[in-house]
Amino acid sequence: MTNPKLKIVPLGGLGEVGKNMMAYEYDNQILVVDAGLMFPDNDMIGVDYIIPDFEYLYDKSHNIAGIIITHGHEDHIGALQHVLSRIPAPVYGTQLTLGLVEVKLARNGMASKADLRPVQAGQTLQVGPFKVEFFHVCHSIPDAVGLGITTGAGLVVHTGDFKFDHTPVDNWPTDYAKLAEFSARGVDLLLSDSTNAERPGWTPSEKVIGPALEKVIAEAPGRVIIATFASLISRMQQTADAAVKQHRKLAFAGMSMVDNAKMARRLGYLLVPDETLVSLDIALNLPPEQVVIMCTGSQGEPSSIIGRLSAGTNRQFDLLPNDTVVLSSHPIPGNEEPVSKTINKMLRRGANVIYDSIAPIHVSGHASQEEQKLMLNLVRPRYFMPIHGELRQLRRHAGLAEEMGMSRQNIILAENGQTVELSNGEIRLGERIPGGYVFVEGSAIGDADPDVMREREQLARSGIFIVNLSVDKYSNRLLDDPEIITRGFVPSDEAEALIQLVRKRVTDVIHGGGLSMQKEIMDVVKTLIFNETRRRPMVFVTVTKA
Amino acid sequence: MTNPKLKIVPLGGLGEVGKNMMAYEYDNQILVVDAGLMFPDNDMIGVDYIIPDFEYLYDKSHNIAGIIITHGHEDHIGALQHVLSRIPAPVYGTQLTLGLVEVKLARNGMASKADLRPVQAGQTLQVGPFKVEFFHVCHSIPDAVGLGITTGAGLVVHTGDFKFDHTPVDNWPTDYAKLAEFSARGVDLLLSDSTNAERPGWTPSEKVIGPALEKVIAEAPGRVIIATFASLISRMQQTADAAVKQHRKLAFAGMSMVDNAKMARRLGYLLVPDETLVSLDIALNLPPEQVVIMCTGSQGEPSSIIGRLSAGTNRQFDLLPNDTVVLSSHPIPGNEEPVSKTINKMLRRGANVIYDSIAPIHVSGHASQEEQKLMLNLVRPRYFMPIHGELRQLRRHAGLAEEMGMSRQNIILAENGQTVELSNGEIRLGERIPGGYVFVEGSAIGDADPDVMREREQLARSGIFIVNLSVDKYSNRLLDDPEIITRGFVPSDEAEALIQLVRKRVTDVIHGGGLSMQKEIMDVVKTLIFNETRRRPMVFVTVTKA
Repeated sequence: MTNPKLKIVPLGGLGEVGKNMMAYEYDNQILVVDAGLMFPDNDMIGVDYIIPDFEYLYDKSHNIAGIIITHGHEDHIGALQHVLSRIPAPVYGTQLTLGLVEVKLARNGMASKADLRPVQAGQTLQVGPFKVEFFHVCHSIPDAVGLGITTGAGLVVHTGDFKFDHTPVDNWPTDYAKLAEFSARGVDLLLSDSTNAERPGWTPSEKVIGPALEKVIAEAPGRVIIATFASLISRMQQTADAAVKQHRKLAFAGMSMVDNAKMARRLGYLLVPDETLVSLDIALNLPPEQVVIMCTGSQGEPSSIIGRLSAGTNRQFDLLPNDTVVLSSHPIPGNEEPVSKTINKMLRRGANVIYDSIAPIHVSGHASQEEQKLMLNLVRPRYFMPIHGELRQLRRHAGLAEEMGMSRQNIILAENGQTVELSNGEIRLGERIPGGYVFVEGSAIGDADPDVMREREQLARSGIFIVNLSVDKYSNRLLDDPEIITRGFVPSDEAEALIQLVRKRVTDVIHGGGLSMQKEIMDVVKTLIFNETRRRPMVFVTVTKA
Repeated sequence: MTNPKLKIVPLGGLGEVGKNMMAYEYDNQILVVDAGLMFPDNDMIGVDYIIPDFEYLYDKSHNIAGIIITHGHEDHIGALQHVLSRIPAPVYGTQLTLGLVEVKLARNGMASKADLRPVQAGQTLQVGPFKVEFFHVCHSIPDAVGLGITTGAGLVVHTGDFKFDHTPVDNWPTDYAKLAEFSARGVDLLLSDSTNAERPGWTPSEKVIGPALEKVIAEAPGRVIIATFASLISRMQQTADAAVKQHRKLAFAGMSMVDNAKMARRLGYLLVPDETLVSLDIALNLPPEQVVIMCTGSQGEPSSIIGRLSAGTNRQFDLLPNDTVVLSSHPIPGNEEPVSKTINKMLRRGANVIYDSIAPIHVSGHASQEEQKLMLNLVRPRYFMPIHGELRQLRRHAGLAEEMGMSRQNIILAENGQTVELSNGEIRLGERIPGGYVFVEGSAIGDADPDVMREREQLARSGIFIVNLSVDKYSNRLLDDPEIITRGFVPSDEAEALIQLVRKRVTDVIHGGGLSMQKEIMDVVKTLIFNETRRRPMVFVTVTKA
């Protein structure tokens, strides 16, 4: 072994550390863990989603031994199509995880390019120099795993997203025994999920949702429309169970929901009797009180089925006054406003809307403080690095470890782009790599960058004001009235008066012979507009001399 | 009495009903209650704040008997300057409320135009045909009132923002006796605060904040910087008390905070010993462990002191590594993301940041479900109209009343713009008036309208692409290469190649003689851009013929 050093590289920009993608480097070989997307902040205008900038891996792509996906949620698989187009490495994951990956890749025409290799929790795999032990964890999706990663630098435990659910929907609790075994062996470093580090106590079990859903369905006078994420297979199972008990038919609506449900049924992760499952077409023709429909849109996305139902623009069906809509998710931070608007719009259309403050129809998939402490005490690592959280959550998680007696020197806080090195039983901060996120805009080829974002924000703030001048090249007099176009500036009635004013001023200035330079005319126009309106739209002046 | 009908008009658009402004009409006379602003939604780009559209009152301005302000928060006083410039009516409010109004009007040069008339809780006032009984309510600001409004149509109780705090900072609980007296007299209609209708239980007392603040200050190794709203006078009092106990000096930073504190001290609502209060200049030169600074910015506003401290752009002082920053407020819905970013930025600068999930340094000023039920049971109205909430909260509040045995027919749900009529002991929905919000952009004169917002969003989504052509009017040939300007579109390196492509295509098309119309060239450019980039920026083509 030339260099028994393990380098840990959380990829991405300021945001949740290592949530979407991490790299472990050892002996010039790299193990990538997860390849997910993030939803854009409200000020990232026009962006559909963002993915970690993994340029760091470009010139190392032939040293990448494998990509491990811990579970099938978008924030862990959503960047895989982009990663695979650059990095031709095998992808390891459990059966359901790879099922979800396959559905997603197929939709992007990438399925044939991927080398997908199924693994099972409990299995040990040698991937290059990394011995990877997969252990089962509970999360809001079945078949999620954490990783024990052994190299010459020691044993690292990477929890992935997890919670300690004693009564999970699939009856498969987090693998306490494996964690204890790691502990007995001696864990050098624990990387643990910090998402809920600000929540005291213990996250409720998924089991509480079942009776709540059943009660909603039992009491609903008409159709029940349940919205959640398309990858929340366990919520599908709970809805199916409740539908069966309440003698209703279940239909999935929307391509991603239908595809995922089909795949999960085929693989045996979703058990729905054939006589319960119907197509949406059939469901829409049944008496409303016999129907449950599952769809996406619980985050208030305008283009989702729920978004379109709330706006009255859904093609296949509309909201009916006796419909009961269940939003079975918490708003993702930043989505509170669109979710609230969607709720109000559906209420306005006469639907009954059930959301988390009304009934326990959603629980978090992440460990709260007491579970995070349990993880620390089960694993008893020498070093601890909180991951999967913004700095505020990492700090709280670090604080919990300190309260439990861990020394501050043994806790390492690193944000994305900050590498961490483990060697000879010691840990330290390594180099900073240039990181960040890449903005993805639908099927756009190029990717927007921060400069472009800034310009868009400026455009959005006060609109544009274009002045087009044609000037006689000899006399410097205008050949025509200045042509003026504005957008996003002031209402058209107000704009008209202002346009006259600008036209006159520009004409006066040019004919006064004072100015002829584009820049100078631009300044005159900007000053005039600001004095009249106190606004600063982007001003463009084009001058044609003829 | 020609028409013993009371008409209730909640002004504004879709949003919190009657929160910012309501009108009561009786016998052709109008009583306005509150004149506040709202903060814009995230998709209202470039807007500083929004106010209710009160056009309904324009042609009735001479029938407006008075404007009553229930308390001094921005969402109840912030539109007053705009209202008074149209409606020259007297403004009634308690001493502290009018103090805050005065500070605000003075800043906008409106102080001399306002006819401010102080009232006291407990007082009864005849304002035109309205007998108004002011009663004290607890809220997160002292000197807040609710109203009993008696006309020939009966007795209406309007709670304003309230909570039932048994141990308020100013030792002045909500006036239970007056509510009971109303009840004994017989209340026809109760309009009650629905803000927290989704919160079970009882809102904690303001008193819990005192010890929490004191603990933070006692344990802080350096300066303590406490951020809250400039109008939260009781938070100032609690901070001052904690500073005194911990032998620290207190300074207020920022114009609105300084002005409000000065006014509140002058009127006796804020008690700070002279030896405790120092100017910011002095505070910045004291040893850090002797200093508490209060400022604004708890909502993550970039232009506030906290916003600038988090970005490292504050002029007077910077964050120091030993600083403790306390964000003493909950994020207003929609502000979760900027608040979280601000917390992360300050942590990154080495400050310790205390926010609501860490310590009880903020409580709501609004009644939770048990208090809302208590209000209903104290007042025992014949009819109930939930106000101060979006439809989702109004529904929950209505649900509480139903659970308490109130008949659904006696509960009236009305959104802004929907008038409600009370006459002869009967209630019904009246006419709908055109409502909405008016967008205010800084000191801009005109106001942005929804069309302008839509254009801005479109500009922001994909940027702009301007093509300027100069064409020989005889030969229809280009006199020059097409001039092309883009903003917010694609990064400049990518744009260059595309611009060449567009230039060539446009030249080819024009010289091919196929097209000469502006619209047709625009279509060619749009198609080319979309095919190359899958984006749809706003395209402008200007043609000069010479």
